[in-house]
Amino acid sequence: MDSVMRLAEEVMARCRLLASYSERAEGLTRTFLSAPVCDCHLLISKWMRALGMRVATDAIGNLRGVYAGAGDETRRLLIGSHIDTVPDAGAFDGVLGVMLGLALVAGLAGKRLPYEIEVIAFSEEEGVRFRTPFLGSRAVTGALSASDPELVDEHGVTIAQAIRDFGLDPARIGEARIDARRAIGFVEFHIEQGPVLDEAGVGTAVVEAIAGQSRFDVTFRGAANHAGTTPMQRRRDALAGAAEWIGAVEREALATDGSVATVGSIVCIPNAGNVIAGEARVSLDVRHRADEVRLSLVKRLLDFAEEIAARRNLKVAWNERLNEPAVQMDPDLLQLAARTTPFRMVSGAGHDAMILAAVVPSVMFFLRSPGGISHHPDESVRVEDVASAILAGLGLLAEIAKRYN
Amino acid sequence: MDSVMRLAEEVMARCRLLASYSERAEGLTRTFLSAPVCDCHLLISKWMRALGMRVATDAIGNLRGVYAGAGDETRRLLIGSHIDTVPDAGAFDGVLGVMLGLALVAGLAGKRLPYEIEVIAFSEEEGVRFRTPFLGSRAVTGALSASDPELVDEHGVTIAQAIRDFGLDPARIGEARIDARRAIGFVEFHIEQGPVLDEAGVGTAVVEAIAGQSRFDVTFRGAANHAGTTPMQRRRDALAGAAEWIGAVEREALATDGSVATVGSIVCIPNAGNVIAGEARVSLDVRHRADEVRLSLVKRLLDFAEEIAARRNLKVAWNERLNEPAVQMDPDLLQLAARTTPFRMVSGAGHDAMILAAVVPSVMFFLRSPGGISHHPDESVRVEDVASAILAGLGLLAEIAKRYN
Repeated sequence: MDSVMRLAEEVMARCRLLASYSERAEGLTRTFLSAPVCDCHLLISKWMRALGMRVATDAIGNLRGVYAGAGDETRRLLIGSHIDTVPDAGAFDGVLGVMLGLALVAGLAGKRLPYEIEVIAFSEEEGVRFRTPFLGSRAVTGALSASDPELVDEHGVTIAQAIRDFGLDPARIGEARIDARRAIGFVEFHIEQGPVLDEAGVGTAVVEAIAGQSRFDVTFRGAANHAGTTPMQRRRDALAGAAEWIGAVEREALATDGSVATVGSIVCIPNAGNVIAGEARVSLDVRHRADEVRLSLVKRLLDFAEEIAARRNLKVAWNERLNEPAVQMDPDLLQLAARTTPFRMVSGAGHDAMILAAVVPSVMFFLRSPGGISHHPDESVRVEDVASAILAGLGLLAEIAKRYN
Repeated sequence: MDSVMRLAEEVMARCRLLASYSERAEGLTRTFLSAPVCDCHLLISKWMRALGMRVATDAIGNLRGVYAGAGDETRRLLIGSHIDTVPDAGAFDGVLGVMLGLALVAGLAGKRLPYEIEVIAFSEEEGVRFRTPFLGSRAVTGALSASDPELVDEHGVTIAQAIRDFGLDPARIGEARIDARRAIGFVEFHIEQGPVLDEAGVGTAVVEAIAGQSRFDVTFRGAANHAGTTPMQRRRDALAGAAEWIGAVEREALATDGSVATVGSIVCIPNAGNVIAGEARVSLDVRHRADEVRLSLVKRLLDFAEEIAARRNLKVAWNERLNEPAVQMDPDLLQLAARTTPFRMVSGAGHDAMILAAVVPSVMFFLRSPGGISHHPDESVRVEDVASAILAGLGLLAEIAKRYN
């Protein structure tokens, strides 16, 4: 147990050290293949080699270390998360999962298992630089399409050029793809980024599923008019209609167990204090672990929009911007993980495991986010929860090993 | 009656002709002392002189024509409205009231009354160029403060410079002030700019009062958070709070007879579809003819804001930006006007008569706005309503004349 706490402390210290490699003088910002990523690779490679791992960087910039098995195994368990960050990030989002992968290898203390372990530091998950997330994990599953390298960042640099600038060869992205037949599973540790575990007083959880997601733009159109001369009864106020609908979205989501629905953005035209709004454009984001529940909630909300618009003599129109199905974690791995980690939950946010799950049985562990804070310099994790995660991971490695002994 | 219809048609034609004098090639935009105002002055002066009026332009740019009385009277009745416009305006807002003033003088057909008539084309009412309304009427009542000439337009031109550029002397603004002891009343004709008369099927109305107005900025503050990972029950959603309040504003205004209350502007932070709003800033505009009703409605609305914020664990703060009392039209003139024009209503918008009423008994007539449309190229007025307004005005002139015979 003492050695687990020491490993946990090392994980924390390494996350904080890596957080010092930033594009900006103030705070942590480290986007896809930016200069500080090179420093991170040097450091993580050194730690991997010290554990006896073979290290390579694939053409999308994922850093990959392989810890050999007991014999000449071709079976491989993948463990990983991402090392890119959002702007002004915290020290643990993503990086923690990579450092925990190394801690599990360290926890084996030289012992070899009947399968290889590959720890992957995905180069891109947040989608900041090219406004496209999951570049790293999509290359690993073969889902990075040929057209994506044409994406351009805010300085006009293409992905292909960014890859070349980092000393890699974009023509070889295809080689990043794993041999799914050899992969026996993917495990990702990640901070929860929400308040659930913190408020429940629980340190770690197994993620059963990653919620599916719908996004819409919804526009209410009425008639802009003089705020002083248009009687209340004769108004076609687009903002009043949108406001009523925002209330309906909240009410329905509260009444639909396990769902979240958010109107986070609103733009009103002409947006003048003395003019009744002629148009109000709002966003809608709906998530649930069960696609049929999500789609039925979306339908109810759009029905409400139509009912509100009709009653108020407004027009309403919408655009579906995203309809991403939920991703279920592997039932077998879930069962093994549950032996050490009884608390189960659904992830409302997307993660690399969502991409990997399409080609390999996957499971995730969440670590409590104190205060529910993430994507912020105050983001943190408790060392005792890191220790629990190490124990859970080592337990899972042992359970899997039993199958091949 | 034939001659009244001819006068009404002339009023319509003159409004349309003046609408061709615009700062822009497309549509009508004519702000304070812009070049096309000079063309309007030349034309209107010609029409005034043809009626035997003495014409002068005061130092704020008001064009003023005086039609002498029967003898050596010093009593004077003022009639007027403004000739500046909003951007992309219609042809009748303001200008109609000036043309109707001339039509009344024309309708006298050379007959002299026991008082002078001064028709004033106010140079500024809309507040477009210097973001300050009523410059023309405030100079006439002596309410244009010495500091106002320091106002600067979007090209960096001060009011004083704009006045000099028009060939006038800003040092003489004080001379624009009327002698209130000589003024026996002020009469303004204006399009309604709302749907009330059109929907009631009434052509003209007497305005009893100009509504008082309150304006506030109201800010709800919650906690910005991840739209996917923050359960509904744990949110502090500033936009959801603001939306609930917008509903309360509408409901309370509907329940308060004669009031209007409008949230026309909203700004949400960070305003991203996948982030719960941390802050929502909304405007509030409340109007009523009775100040005590308006202030009590405002208090109820702010109480609701506090109640909603407390229940949702948000903070709410507000800034009062305007608290303009209602202006009552003169009871005696109202009674005289009612002999020809039985329909009475309250103006929800401000007008020059609101400024004049502070120093001289004032009354307004509204003409129906077809479709309630104004501040738009489609703004219109019906020729039969213009004829009714001419008859109403001539009737009022005769009633006033009786008093001094």
